Amino acid sequence: MKIGFLQLRPQFGRVKENVRAAKSMLVGLTDATVVLPELFNTGYLFRNMEEVRDLAESATTGYTVTELKKVAVAQQLNLVFGIAEAKNKKYFNSSVLITSKGKIESYQKAHLFDREKLFFQPGTRSFNAYPVEGGKIGMMICFDWFFPEVSRVLALEGAQVICHPSNLVLPWCQDAMRTRSLENKVFTVTANRIGLEKRGNISLTFTGKSQIVTPKGEVLAQASERSESLKVVEVDLNEALDKTVTPNNDLFKDRKPALYKSILRKAG
Amino acid sequence: MKIGFLQLRPQFGRVKENVRAAKSMLVGLTDATVVLPELFNTGYLFRNMEEVRDLAESATTGYTVTELKKVAVAQQLNLVFGIAEAKNKKYFNSSVLITSKGKIESYQKAHLFDREKLFFQPGTRSFNAYPVEGGKIGMMICFDWFFPEVSRVLALEGAQVICHPSNLVLPWCQDAMRTRSLENKVFTVTANRIGLEKRGNISLTFTGKSQIVTPKGEVLAQASERSESLKVVEVDLNEALDKTVTPNNDLFKDRKPALYKSILRKAG
Repeated sequence: MKIGFLQLRPQFGRVKENVRAAKSMLVGLTDATVVLPELFNTGYLFRNMEEVRDLAESATTGYTVTELKKVAVAQQLNLVFGIAEAKNKKYFNSSVLITSKGKIESYQKAHLFDREKLFFQPGTRSFNAYPVEGGKIGMMICFDWFFPEVSRVLALEGAQVICHPSNLVLPWCQDAMRTRSLENKVFTVTANRIGLEKRGNISLTFTGKSQIVTPKGEVLAQASERSESLKVVEVDLNEALDKTVTPNNDLFKDRKPALYKSILRKAG
Repeated sequence: MKIGFLQLRPQFGRVKENVRAAKSMLVGLTDATVVLPELFNTGYLFRNMEEVRDLAESATTGYTVTELKKVAVAQQLNLVFGIAEAKNKKYFNSSVLITSKGKIESYQKAHLFDREKLFFQPGTRSFNAYPVEGGKIGMMICFDWFFPEVSRVLALEGAQVICHPSNLVLPWCQDAMRTRSLENKVFTVTANRIGLEKRGNISLTFTGKSQIVTPKGEVLAQASERSESLKVVEVDLNEALDKTVTPNNDLFKDRKPALYKSILRKAG
């Protein structure tokens, strides 16, 4: 399977232009799994709930999903991308998977970052792995990387590649994702955005360096900090089914869940 | 508090010489927490159970513990070091903590690496944090690093510094420990050994590069790959009590244990 990322520079509030830009960069690509950034269609720095309500969409029937479903089916792509989701008058920072067959799945970000908490509800569904042609895909969004439990659960659920739409502003994620890949023996694709976003008195610079990492923690491809880019590499997703570290160690069979109980304890 | 490591080159089977070498490198140091390598007193490559039985000791009254307890109390040190432990005719790859007050705690390695499984029982007690003057100490051993659950449990139990006696032969740990520090906002001290050990037809080269990492994932000190060395730095362990990432994010309060249930599921 080919897996990769589309690193973009979204413009705040310009959903149609952002979707069009993404589609134009995907022209000619077929038979691949491609990850786009978090909130790629809306931009990141919402100033108030009115903007969120204006720009959020259904994760099954909205404009962005409808447009990208056409691309996914026509070009035989599995597309993973971040949107602001509206559902029953609640708003989520969500990731959508559209398979090459047109099937739609979504994940609502559980670990909201900083001011996202002012505008979005945290997701309350756990982390799932979804079958596509050739393997199983998991999704997590940006700051979820900080919590090792997320990628661990995805891998235990069978994800062979973790798709990771992001809008990164902190310096650590790209290195940490090598550990996320390695400790779970899965592929990870982090699709970051680039550019400066300035709204009101807040401005953020996004760090680019989208990357594809193997189950051994090797970076197969990495984008620059400054350019929009599409990178896709051919990999064997079956590598992620093998959790062997030495002839005597299987990373998952060696786990000792009886010793991990504190992980489910609530914060005191 | 001063925290640091003593990177050593143990000689297989020469317990007295190895203990003497460690003591001589600690001469003059006072008021610090110092981590020594895994199995620092025995060496690593056991060939049969007879060797294990010959070299293993009690983790409370054995030669090594008795000798290092004198040093700990006389020099006001908290010492953490790896030994082959004998207990009720079972054998463990253990880490011992002797506090500056002479109190002894121990941890039996839960995740055994490769051929260690031929000689040692896996530990079945969970991961604890132990109070010392100025903070709380957690212990894990070498390959435990590969399992994010271990350092997570230690941090949730209140460890401010994770002491990590090691005999590393794989290339990834030193980088991954930066993520272990960061994702838990704790200090980590990895004490590795150096040297080539060749026994029968097996030989291993240990990778050195012992290190001290801050809760922000910064490497404060790192040893070379080839020299024995003692490095100690002054840190404020209270930094590890602050789990703040942004004004709106506390790494522990933001956790969503209800979504992490798969982590306790046994391997299928």
